[in-house]
Amino acid sequence: MTTSSPFLAHGIAGHLVSTKENGNSTPIYSALDGTVVASTSTEGLDLSAAYTYAREVGNPNLRKMTFQERGRMLKRLALHLHARKERFYEVSWSTGATRTDAWIDIEGGIGNLFSYASLRRKLPNTPFALDGESLGLSKGGTFSGHHILTPREGVAVHINAFNFPVWGMLEKAAVNWLAGMPCIVKPATATSHLTEAVCREIWASGILPDGALQWVCGSARDILDHVDERDVVTFTGSAATGRKLRQAPRIQALSVPFNLEADSLNAAVLGATVEPGDPEFELFIKEVRKEMTVKCGQKCTAVRRILVPRHLMDATQEALIASLERTAIGDPRKEGVRMGALVSKDQVEEVRNQAAKIGRDADLVYHPEGQFLSDAPEAGAFLTPMVFRTDRPMDAAACHEVEAFGPVSTLMAYDGVEEAAVLAKMGRGSLCCSITTHSPKEAQDFVYNAASMHGRMLVLDRDCAKESTGHGSPLPLLVHGGPGRAGGGEEMGGIRGVKHYMQRTALQGSPTMLSAITQQYQPGGAQIESEPHVFRKHFEELEIGDTVTTHKHTVTEADIVNFANVSGDNFYAHVDATSLDGTIFERRVAHGYFVLSKAAGLFVDPKKGPVLLNYGIEEARFTKPVYPGATIGVRLTVKEKIAQEKRDADDIAKGIVKFLVDVYDETGETVALATILTMVKMKNQAD
Amino acid sequence: MTTSSPFLAHGIAGHLVSTKENGNSTPIYSALDGTVVASTSTEGLDLSAAYTYAREVGNPNLRKMTFQERGRMLKRLALHLHARKERFYEVSWSTGATRTDAWIDIEGGIGNLFSYASLRRKLPNTPFALDGESLGLSKGGTFSGHHILTPREGVAVHINAFNFPVWGMLEKAAVNWLAGMPCIVKPATATSHLTEAVCREIWASGILPDGALQWVCGSARDILDHVDERDVVTFTGSAATGRKLRQAPRIQALSVPFNLEADSLNAAVLGATVEPGDPEFELFIKEVRKEMTVKCGQKCTAVRRILVPRHLMDATQEALIASLERTAIGDPRKEGVRMGALVSKDQVEEVRNQAAKIGRDADLVYHPEGQFLSDAPEAGAFLTPMVFRTDRPMDAAACHEVEAFGPVSTLMAYDGVEEAAVLAKMGRGSLCCSITTHSPKEAQDFVYNAASMHGRMLVLDRDCAKESTGHGSPLPLLVHGGPGRAGGGEEMGGIRGVKHYMQRTALQGSPTMLSAITQQYQPGGAQIESEPHVFRKHFEELEIGDTVTTHKHTVTEADIVNFANVSGDNFYAHVDATSLDGTIFERRVAHGYFVLSKAAGLFVDPKKGPVLLNYGIEEARFTKPVYPGATIGVRLTVKEKIAQEKRDADDIAKGIVKFLVDVYDETGETVALATILTMVKMKNQAD
Repeated sequence: MTTSSPFLAHGIAGHLVSTKENGNSTPIYSALDGTVVASTSTEGLDLSAAYTYAREVGNPNLRKMTFQERGRMLKRLALHLHARKERFYEVSWSTGATRTDAWIDIEGGIGNLFSYASLRRKLPNTPFALDGESLGLSKGGTFSGHHILTPREGVAVHINAFNFPVWGMLEKAAVNWLAGMPCIVKPATATSHLTEAVCREIWASGILPDGALQWVCGSARDILDHVDERDVVTFTGSAATGRKLRQAPRIQALSVPFNLEADSLNAAVLGATVEPGDPEFELFIKEVRKEMTVKCGQKCTAVRRILVPRHLMDATQEALIASLERTAIGDPRKEGVRMGALVSKDQVEEVRNQAAKIGRDADLVYHPEGQFLSDAPEAGAFLTPMVFRTDRPMDAAACHEVEAFGPVSTLMAYDGVEEAAVLAKMGRGSLCCSITTHSPKEAQDFVYNAASMHGRMLVLDRDCAKESTGHGSPLPLLVHGGPGRAGGGEEMGGIRGVKHYMQRTALQGSPTMLSAITQQYQPGGAQIESEPHVFRKHFEELEIGDTVTTHKHTVTEADIVNFANVSGDNFYAHVDATSLDGTIFERRVAHGYFVLSKAAGLFVDPKKGPVLLNYGIEEARFTKPVYPGATIGVRLTVKEKIAQEKRDADDIAKGIVKFLVDVYDETGETVALATILTMVKMKNQAD
Repeated sequence: MTTSSPFLAHGIAGHLVSTKENGNSTPIYSALDGTVVASTSTEGLDLSAAYTYAREVGNPNLRKMTFQERGRMLKRLALHLHARKERFYEVSWSTGATRTDAWIDIEGGIGNLFSYASLRRKLPNTPFALDGESLGLSKGGTFSGHHILTPREGVAVHINAFNFPVWGMLEKAAVNWLAGMPCIVKPATATSHLTEAVCREIWASGILPDGALQWVCGSARDILDHVDERDVVTFTGSAATGRKLRQAPRIQALSVPFNLEADSLNAAVLGATVEPGDPEFELFIKEVRKEMTVKCGQKCTAVRRILVPRHLMDATQEALIASLERTAIGDPRKEGVRMGALVSKDQVEEVRNQAAKIGRDADLVYHPEGQFLSDAPEAGAFLTPMVFRTDRPMDAAACHEVEAFGPVSTLMAYDGVEEAAVLAKMGRGSLCCSITTHSPKEAQDFVYNAASMHGRMLVLDRDCAKESTGHGSPLPLLVHGGPGRAGGGEEMGGIRGVKHYMQRTALQGSPTMLSAITQQYQPGGAQIESEPHVFRKHFEELEIGDTVTTHKHTVTEADIVNFANVSGDNFYAHVDATSLDGTIFERRVAHGYFVLSKAAGLFVDPKKGPVLLNYGIEEARFTKPVYPGATIGVRLTVKEKIAQEKRDADDIAKGIVKFLVDVYDETGETVALATILTMVKMKNQAD
């Protein structure tokens, strides 16, 4: 139950970590029995040096890596931590978490590393990425644009909440590392000994480069006095603290991006079309019970407001209370315990105080005496759930404003789905909102009316319930954050999150110049006739802009007939000369698929060589009808190259090559344009 | 030279406009001769009512429109204003602008309306849009996600700068209108009479719905005291004022998005590979001269720092001064005048004061006596250009910090492209930066090293010069904004800008439920077998999820041979059984294009009907090799529908229908997946 040292370590010098004794330390108490499990202090730490180390060592180390390298690094780190997860579970007990709670925190956090590792497949093999498409900015085609994303040159400073000491760090750090930025993590003191345990394993692994992760435990002190315009600051926690930190002088003066994700008054809605016998009624009760009891309701996304059709208020209250009654509370190491302790006795007191404010506007309908399964029921931070109820929620301001960060929620009656949306929005900005309904119409109406004030919305029904990750779970590929009270920030969201740590820059210039800079062929850029044929070159030998201008083919009626026969596609516009009146076609037209297939017939060099296969097509457009008599040729140009890692030692070393296929006719006009995806072998097959 | 009324109107009640006399008004002086052209006041205005009107009338009017409707509205508005542009040019003289300056402002602003009107083609025919792709969130496929963008439910409040009274309004308003939000525009007082002239034409046109545009002229007073979490605030102007406004209590407390675009110390770099005889040398001189003199250098993007290879400092200084000497300054209505007046005499004084600060760290090498072509040379706000020079720019802090918002710039010597990047970044965040070079290597090195501190970068050379829009011009499809000193915001950028006025919400649920909400078929969603065949249904009759499950086809060697013959694609993997060693193929494999073509043969209903044509393919993937003996079938599902407007009365009424093509084999596994794009006729051909 205790960590390795009574005075926690400070990872302020890159990997390393100086352990120091200190008289002015803050103790960390076990949530289960109140004993001291560790102490923290930041006294004497030079936080300015931490910034300098991150910017001068960590940042250059990460920004020079490609996305593929960073992604593989994340995967190795995820595997490393996963193999050691039981150590983290052991430390986690003292935070009051059950095994399920800790699973969300520990394996959820590691899962985020895996997810962001996999995102490398959507990114190039360069330190930078492109954003959006190539933009023609002139009629003549000599001036164009593209947006490029480059890693910011500072450090990401993460100030995190106590509830998820592992996930809270990894959900953010995975993103900044993939983007190419280092971070300094400042976890909330109360559970920072668990964060420390993970940091130690990370540093010990040697997987991250120097300066990629630093960690500050204890008072945050002057941490925001060193930030500048190269950095990014994130905060997760209470709305009040977040707003205060965002107003730090240097953040405002230097326009430092500040990503705020604040606890909000999230609503769960029971659809008005649901009846007590429906599967959705039971699903709703289960979901609300889960949201109130997992982590003892200490989640930024927990359900604080339970919106119920007026005629189902009594039934819902009864079912929810019955469900809560069956949830055993106590020391999570004891058999049968489903709900653990709050993080501290102070937090219990805080929750009671906040609940009292809610009680001014709503009736407390459930808050039983505690029967805690614990050897120290008095010393532990235990608290039984509290259910409030109001039948006039429009007039119950406190229920929409006051957050009790614990197992506390308020039942509210609504009339009609539009009113439910109005009530949901009375939270003035939430991280998430769910509606339980099997009616698509009801879900549509609710979502369209409520989405503008929510960062995430779940529609729960019988079809998805088994696999649903639930109201309360942020996911790596989905944005986590919300407007207004929820802070206005966005975390994760797949590639979206990566962009928070990169600068987007609009590039302008000639297509040839932009092709060189972006490492992606830009339409209109110089084409270099390739000798030998591009199909005869290995991955390493291909250059962006390498082009094959093929021989040509005069399209005949025989082509159309033959193609109709082999494909079976006898669409009238291709084969029926009597049905073209009122169409855009003057004569029978060649199949678009014929034009693409014939283009391949023209550009393919058939003999066995480095090209392994064609695995797809992106953005094909048939831009001009091709009639018999037209003569088509192709320009096949190397557009983009992405080196792939070998799956194992026996795998062929290869990479993805995207080719631009430009099919033109005898007038020089383009008749079809497509990007094709191929796999090409590398020359160097050595490991 | 004067506007219609001595007391400017206040468009605070939607279309309406109340003109009131007021004793405490602020006069607007002509920049050319100091006469009073108008007066402004906000005394007595109820700004809270303007917010209410926007939220309760303007917002619902706009948010219920689809993107197609909003886009067409923008196009009509652009045409309306374009037809009246000469009226705006007439008002513009008094701001000191030349015809060229006014062209940027007036036609640039209208051009932005046209650009955002065209963006509707990238958006759906619904009031909301989807963001990113469908996300599978579970192994079994019953739980998935998609991000939806809905219009925020408040108002966009735009606080604008004096330099572009028309463009400054329209570059922002076009974006919030396309997004479905109304706006309140507060232009800078000094040139607000020109903004007023445009607003009057907008209101008079009746093209915008009630409440879409309100306009406040004069002191901003309590304008930010009414903002809440539904709104968006933007500011364009000085960094100091922007930072101050961003700290308005309600903006901070309610996490109101604040998009700040601040004037910055933009650098133009002459590449070290350029020699005085090269075209790029002349281009560079011309560009810098233009940036210093257009709008008298009163542009947030103007070149304030001229970075020159040390050995070319004298040559550059000489050429630049010679070029500036040839620029006639004066009343822009006079023949030959190329540079007009600053906005006011006060501004001339302000520029002189700032220039004096720069003079502490650099030498003034050019600032001639004024010979102004004007009937009132003393009364007009004329100022000749100032060129400063420093050969030790690393030590010249003022040159990187002090902005003189006029025709003032500093020549700085650099050694090597990396140092040029360091110097460029000493501006601590800029809107744009350009390098003039014909060397891709030099451009690459500079961009990779400098991009993280710049919102836009231009590479100027002989290839793009003729069509280049120049260092100083923000463009509708490119982001405008920059980190740090430039404010950290982003304007425009095509669809990116639209997202600032919409809430992004992560939706989760069953694929069937999400298909209903998103109006886009989500993989795994319910498929409804269509009777009749989807090719027999008109646009209006097709429903998302409508599916045709086709007959099947057993692939044979004959298919492969026939396809190789008709396409000419004899790639070894398809036709040469002896060359498959070491490949992933066990036997000769069917062409990917054959599989797609045969799929069309299976799903096409050939008889003439509502389907007009297939114009493209998106995201085709060949997911499993198809060998002779495999039997393939297709599920063709309606994925998305976008109604198109008629080009003219004779045009066929039609829409885009995207179909998901899922080709599977006898094991049920998918062998190819693609989205195809078709045009489908509407049943209702009435106007």
